[in-house]
Amino acid sequence: MKIGILTGGGDCPGLNAVIRAVVRKSIQNGHETIGIREGWRGILQNNFMPLDLDAISGILPRGGTILGTSRTNVYKEKDGEARVINNMKQAGIDCLVAIGGEDTLGVASKLFKAGVKVVGVPKTIDNDLNATDYTFGFDTAVNIATEAIDRLHTTAESHNRVMVVEVMGRHAGWIAVHAGIAGGADVILIPEKPFDLNEVCEIITKRHQRGKTFSIVVIAEGAKIKTEETVDKDGSLILSDVEVDAFGHVKLGGIGNVIAKEIEKRTGFETRATVLGYIQRGGSPTAFDRVLGTRLGVFAAELVHKGQWGYMAALRGKDIVAVKLEEAVGELKTVDMELYKVAETFFG
Amino acid sequence: MKIGILTGGGDCPGLNAVIRAVVRKSIQNGHETIGIREGWRGILQNNFMPLDLDAISGILPRGGTILGTSRTNVYKEKDGEARVINNMKQAGIDCLVAIGGEDTLGVASKLFKAGVKVVGVPKTIDNDLNATDYTFGFDTAVNIATEAIDRLHTTAESHNRVMVVEVMGRHAGWIAVHAGIAGGADVILIPEKPFDLNEVCEIITKRHQRGKTFSIVVIAEGAKIKTEETVDKDGSLILSDVEVDAFGHVKLGGIGNVIAKEIEKRTGFETRATVLGYIQRGGSPTAFDRVLGTRLGVFAAELVHKGQWGYMAALRGKDIVAVKLEEAVGELKTVDMELYKVAETFFG
Amino acid sequence: MKIGILTGGGDCPGLNAVIRAVVRKSIQNGHETIGIREGWRGILQNNFMPLDLDAISGILPRGGTILGTSRTNVYKEKDGEARVINNMKQAGIDCLVAIGGEDTLGVASKLFKAGVKVVGVPKTIDNDLNATDYTFGFDTAVNIATEAIDRLHTTAESHNRVMVVEVMGRHAGWIAVHAGIAGGADVILIPEKPFDLNEVCEIITKRHQRGKTFSIVVIAEGAKIKTEETVDKDGSLILSDVEVDAFGHVKLGGIGNVIAKEIEKRTGFETRATVLGYIQRGGSPTAFDRVLGTRLGVFAAELVHKGQWGYMAALRGKDIVAVKLEEAVGELKTVDMELYKVAETFFG
Amino acid sequence: MKIGILTGGGDCPGLNAVIRAVVRKSIQNGHETIGIREGWRGILQNNFMPLDLDAISGILPRGGTILGTSRTNVYKEKDGEARVINNMKQAGIDCLVAIGGEDTLGVASKLFKAGVKVVGVPKTIDNDLNATDYTFGFDTAVNIATEAIDRLHTTAESHNRVMVVEVMGRHAGWIAVHAGIAGGADVILIPEKPFDLNEVCEIITKRHQRGKTFSIVVIAEGAKIKTEETVDKDGSLILSDVEVDAFGHVKLGGIGNVIAKEIEKRTGFETRATVLGYIQRGGSPTAFDRVLGTRLGVFAAELVHKGQWGYMAALRGKDIVAVKLEEAVGELKTVDMELYKVAETFFG
Repeated sequence: MKIGILTGGGDCPGLNAVIRAVVRKSIQNGHETIGIREGWRGILQNNFMPLDLDAISGILPRGGTILGTSRTNVYKEKDGEARVINNMKQAGIDCLVAIGGEDTLGVASKLFKAGVKVVGVPKTIDNDLNATDYTFGFDTAVNIATEAIDRLHTTAESHNRVMVVEVMGRHAGWIAVHAGIAGGADVILIPEKPFDLNEVCEIITKRHQRGKTFSIVVIAEGAKIKTEETVDKDGSLILSDVEVDAFGHVKLGGIGNVIAKEIEKRTGFETRATVLGYIQRGGSPTAFDRVLGTRLGVFAAELVHKGQWGYMAALRGKDIVAVKLEEAVGELKTVDMELYKVAETFFG
Repeated sequence: MKIGILTGGGDCPGLNAVIRAVVRKSIQNGHETIGIREGWRGILQNNFMPLDLDAISGILPRGGTILGTSRTNVYKEKDGEARVINNMKQAGIDCLVAIGGEDTLGVASKLFKAGVKVVGVPKTIDNDLNATDYTFGFDTAVNIATEAIDRLHTTAESHNRVMVVEVMGRHAGWIAVHAGIAGGADVILIPEKPFDLNEVCEIITKRHQRGKTFSIVVIAEGAKIKTEETVDKDGSLILSDVEVDAFGHVKLGGIGNVIAKEIEKRTGFETRATVLGYIQRGGSPTAFDRVLGTRLGVFAAELVHKGQWGYMAALRGKDIVAVKLEEAVGELKTVDMELYKVAETFFG
Repeated sequence: MKIGILTGGGDCPGLNAVIRAVVRKSIQNGHETIGIREGWRGILQNNFMPLDLDAISGILPRGGTILGTSRTNVYKEKDGEARVINNMKQAGIDCLVAIGGEDTLGVASKLFKAGVKVVGVPKTIDNDLNATDYTFGFDTAVNIATEAIDRLHTTAESHNRVMVVEVMGRHAGWIAVHAGIAGGADVILIPEKPFDLNEVCEIITKRHQRGKTFSIVVIAEGAKIKTEETVDKDGSLILSDVEVDAFGHVKLGGIGNVIAKEIEKRTGFETRATVLGYIQRGGSPTAFDRVLGTRLGVFAAELVHKGQWGYMAALRGKDIVAVKLEEAVGELKTVDMELYKVAETFFG
Repeated sequence: MKIGILTGGGDCPGLNAVIRAVVRKSIQNGHETIGIREGWRGILQNNFMPLDLDAISGILPRGGTILGTSRTNVYKEKDGEARVINNMKQAGIDCLVAIGGEDTLGVASKLFKAGVKVVGVPKTIDNDLNATDYTFGFDTAVNIATEAIDRLHTTAESHNRVMVVEVMGRHAGWIAVHAGIAGGADVILIPEKPFDLNEVCEIITKRHQRGKTFSIVVIAEGAKIKTEETVDKDGSLILSDVEVDAFGHVKLGGIGNVIAKEIEKRTGFETRATVLGYIQRGGSPTAFDRVLGTRLGVFAAELVHKGQWGYMAALRGKDIVAVKLEEAVGELKTVDMELYKVAETFFG
């Protein structure tokens, strides 16, 4: 078989480990592999690249994806499905390994139903895919955020400051909770648990009262303010200069900067924000992510070899198992509240 | 209750995270905590230290253990058990949290049977405890070893060399397999699978024949040579200058250095060994190990609070669960052969 | 003698190395040392701490300053000078070692002229003090920024993006130039050389035309836009939504975010900004900064021992030399244009 | 001109930065560049590779050398000089940029005298070349060694141990002194200052007597034992199981392991050795080494452009200057004893 491989959605440390593993195992299994550039866009535009043993040499420790990626969705393009099927035939591609998140795997799932031979590998740096225990890239992001919090600790201590750190996590607070626990955060704010800013300020104030001269607040980019919060007792907006949408999300600017200003205003402590942003998803993957990516890639190659189409490789406990693609496109996996309770042990 | 906390056996990144979590949660639960210095030796010698909120401030990111550790075994000391019970009473210590490996937890298990109120937290950098999926410290060690392999790659490439890297793992090859996969090793040798050195050399030679000018061999310190190996067809010892014991273990010097010399002799390729040694167990723990240590510590504090004596906190899948102490002292957890097969995909 | 030690201004990796060295050498020289907390504020408020061999144990690898710091300026406080002199006498402090930047050393210089026995150690993470070749903390900041640029490279490559990285440097672009060269930046913008945004966009566009699908722009926080830039040929503002002050500095928001939006608008390439912020000044110092801090600290202790008041320790070539305090408060050391030319070799 | 570029001797972080800079600047200057593989051996064997802008893309952060290296010395090969001159002519190579240490630059110097147009860039990880203040690769090695010492500190503290760390430095102790100062070593042993092992043990013993439960000894691989040391008062050898050569160098095994055993025997403290070995020269270069390598490379390209043959680029203070090749092959640059005195401040 000639196997096409593509990566879609945001880049993520460990993608190259998966690519390398699929190629290596597939060649051992007697197949041929070809790279599809920039996700689904590549197959729509016949944008391919050779993907043999030479192409994957030395890519394991490198971040990003040698295939490039995009957010192109086949089903939002004119005649997308038909063009994919036709272009695969033209290029002699028998089947696909699609590595991506909910959107990429959603397309894979639909293509499978339309008769395309496809196997998936789940990817999200946010760790919020329901069908798998952990996703590769997440451990790297958590370590980068933890290292940043460690650094901010020394600055906060030296200056008697409150430091607000905004980390990734639009819909789920996994990075915030893990990095917050690992970095010794005094407060962690996540999308799953809308927060009352006065309670946050109270925690910080009490902390300072018992002699601690600094505080670290870790906040996920998608953390929500309780809607009551926006109106104070007199009926005036408390966060007067912040636009909050119907879901309590801060509209403009990052939430980190907004919250930092409010904390300073309400507590009187000097407060500074750091928005970690794109550095969280770049660079060499941790050993955990390289091993997980490699295991998923080898497993996906075996799914292809056995013709187990419509499935993806997933981590369950210590094992890699096959899960139906449609399951990946199900519910969001939000933060385990038992874990959040562990984090709360260290608040204040 | 007044809770005594001790750490025993080899030091391990994440110990301070456990200590901090036990103290913090126990104080919240209304108890008092006291530190026992240098493992079981401390309780035999009445060597205690204050362990309150101040004592644990800032220790989360630090390697080692603020309590110190030793390999003292209560049951190898004269009247050990009686002295422990007596000294606890004298110091007003109601119960113990023992953080350690098979030996430390073995003592804890026996003391529990003798009526001592004790709870355990499993610790081994080698990840070879059967009662828990992963142990803290392991992820840090794997990352340090992987980073070292990354470094050796660039030197090996520049010089057309074979690099042999000896990592920890006396009885089980977990670190070798994980770091080997993560570092892109061309051969991985572990205690669980005695190896034939000629086969290793053949893999390397074939690799060079297909144009690769360097190879990386990762070997666990406890890796065994097949016993046939020691005698060649003519009846003379092949590893003539190496003493091998009854189990096939290399007796003197590290196995890494020995194997490197043999590979150079047999293949003709310049070969160099690096023995990572103690740097694998030192330094700041990874986020994974800090989170795992923290979760285990909080859980152990809850076991204490509920009076669930004779149990330890263990990781199963994504959850922390209670496991009987005696189970920790059972079989060794050796490397999953499915995982080793994943590693073998990349040999040669 | 009883020597008071203080750290003033922004925190900086290497401060603890200096403190440790001054204490250690001074005790060997037969003197006593005492810590003054939070810079000049501490001496005004009689806020002291013990600073003996125990206090400095283990601080070498730690970021920040165990003494705390502030931006309090003695000469902006009522009767500041007199209170310093009086409080020193009250506390039995014979002389001072002041570790800080232009402001802190400016105070030290004036106090010296008023008869206070004082010795200085220069500190600025921005490396813009004229009296010394390099300052400690700078190398750590450059390495953190370089690592961040490395990470952003993999993301930029995978997504065909322009990445703008804002680094520290309000008055001088040392961090931007060093990290830009080390990170392989395609454009570097610094305060010393006001830039024309259209030229920047042209470099990026040409780069993409010759097949490069990503670009990295490193910009110092104090980089200035050419004033002509703000008005286009028709007389309307080009950066219509950006307030620029009389010096061409962007007024609100960070310059990184502003420039990123403009580049995207003008070139049509997806552009993202990352503002590194406080993580650049935190965390464990590099070996270079620990060695430099240690050498300066030992030298300062010798100046004290010899009674060479009114001087500070400075790096010149490979040597540490004594420089008059008033020289530290002279001209700003701006980026060497020869070095910037080296950087320009790699633009586009 | 067609410029041939080669790297010789041991690999070193920063080599790729130099190569990239020479290529980039030379192409801008209107010349063509070609890679010579594996040092001088490549030119003897006509082993070349294309070296244009594509070839150098992405190599800046990577350790090792994309050209490969060897220790081949032209003047130890039959008709070496004549073959170099002839092969250059055949391949149309007008001039050479030779990047290497004393041996590589020694060949370059002789070839220059024989009429070959050659320019040099000094390289030694040991920092012991007299003609330049610092060499690239050294800062990376020092940081790796410092990080290792940091890790060993936590293990040493937890176990009441003496840790001996053997670092690179066959003829000069630069890495040992810098990493020793940066890592907070309690003793540093270097080739420049033969040591008395009893004095070392005395320092450690005194340290333990004043309550410190651990010690770190950093030793350069070329450190020498005082010759008196080998014979005790009764005339019998003290280091009875160690062969020492005429210069006091330990003959077999690494000196780190030997010294560790002796310290344990003489002091009674548990002592462990770690030999850092090849990991010190691998991996991604620090920002310092990337900047230095880049500056030297750009400068060397300018020497070529100006036809300033027989010179090399060297660091003096903050500047890059031209130095005659023959000067590089002069005296060894040994450790500055002023710097060693700074280190001694922290012994014990």
